[in-house]
Amino acid sequence: MENKEIWLESLITATPQEGRELAVKMARKSVAAIQTDPEVRKKLRNDYAADTAQLIASAQVIALEFQTVARANNYWK
Amino acid sequence: MENKEIWLESLITATPQEGRELAVKMARKSVAAIQTDPEVRKKLRNDYAADTAQLIASAQVIALEFQTVARANNYWK
Amino acid sequence: MENKEIWLESLITATPQEGRELAVKMARKSVAAIQTDPEVRKKLRNDYAADTAQLIASAQVIALEFQTVARANNYWK
Amino acid sequence: MENKEIWLESLITATPQEGRELAVKMARKSVAAIQTDPEVRKKLRNDYAADTAQLIASAQVIALEFQTVARANNYWK
Amino acid sequence: MENKEIWLESLITATPQEGRELAVKMARKSVAAIQTDPEVRKKLRNDYAADTAQLIASAQVIALEFQTVARANNYWK
Amino acid sequence: MENKEIWLESLITATPQEGRELAVKMARKSVAAIQTDPEVRKKLRNDYAADTAQLIASAQVIALEFQTVARANNYWK
Repeated sequence: MENKEIWLESLITATPQEGRELAVKMARKSVAAIQTDPEVRKKLRNDYAADTAQLIASAQVIALEFQTVARANNYWK
Repeated sequence: MENKEIWLESLITATPQEGRELAVKMARKSVAAIQTDPEVRKKLRNDYAADTAQLIASAQVIALEFQTVARANNYWK
Repeated sequence: MENKEIWLESLITATPQEGRELAVKMARKSVAAIQTDPEVRKKLRNDYAADTAQLIASAQVIALEFQTVARANNYWK
Repeated sequence: MENKEIWLESLITATPQEGRELAVKMARKSVAAIQTDPEVRKKLRNDYAADTAQLIASAQVIALEFQTVARANNYWK
Repeated sequence: MENKEIWLESLITATPQEGRELAVKMARKSVAAIQTDPEVRKKLRNDYAADTAQLIASAQVIALEFQTVARANNYWK
Repeated sequence: MENKEIWLESLITATPQEGRELAVKMARKSVAAIQTDPEVRKKLRNDYAADTAQLIASAQVIALEFQTVARANNYWK
């Protein structure tokens, strides 16, 4: 289940907004680790992007990943 | 999936209540990162704003984002 | 989506139990930030107060908010 | 929504197991803060105590509350 | 609601894997605190062990409990 | 319920990406602790890998486990 592509070299980002983008990326990569077929993921994304329960559940995952990124960056203070 | 608009310059807010508002904004921006069409989001918001399960799920996302904002601000102590 | 009323001046409370009450209030205010009509919220509250899944989901939100309040107060030690 | 009964004087407990019991109590008190009728709660408890999804959701709330209690007690070290 | 059996004397374990086992035990004990009949729990376990949504929800509870155990042990560093 | 195989010797990994892989492994091992039959798990995995709600729920578990791994590694700073 290992991704050979190195997509996460560091949790450090220059700005909080880049930290948000990294959190979104981390969440997507988790989904890709389980559903490895990009065509299936593309089809599924169209389904859940119009389902509010799943949009909110995705926002929760992003919030959790961002907690980790924000701490790694000491909140960019 | 990157938002070109810079909406998150800092996690620092003057007051706890502004920290709450930032947490709500962060949660909404996560939804916008996945469902990029504002018209679709507007329609969906009307649906979920009257669905208690989804209101509670949204409150959970806000609680998680606020944990991050509160820590960044050292709880405004 | 900003609430003009200042309802959160500080995360500091005199006692742990007041901290619980603040956590419950924070959770309710999140719901109010999304569903701004108090009549709609009143009707919805009657529905979900007898739905165990939603009572448990609400308890989860309160637990998360209380984590933040407790840390702000250094656990009232 | 305030409970006049003082049920949470401190987050400090003598042992980890008492900390677990406090976490369970905190979770139950959250449910009571929303559904204030003990007869309704009693009936609902019989329903959800045989529903695995809700048992697992309850265990998640207890886990979150216990995180807070454990930190308050510095893990009883 | 108190368990008279002392099953949690300490959060300290010798190894990370024993920490995982303790987290699984803590999650199971939460379920037992709500559904006190072991025969009912046995029957329910057979049901949810083949339901992926509930397996994933159980994994989330274990992840939360393990966060607490890991911190108590300072990550076994 | 104990796994005799030692699969978690340490939370320390050389890189953040290996930390992600460990988080995914920890999440899978939790599922295996509850559903011990690998054939049943294989069949279930095919089911949930095409169900967006369950993919998102899995991503949430990975996010939680990664929080623990990241802290153990001091964010690989």
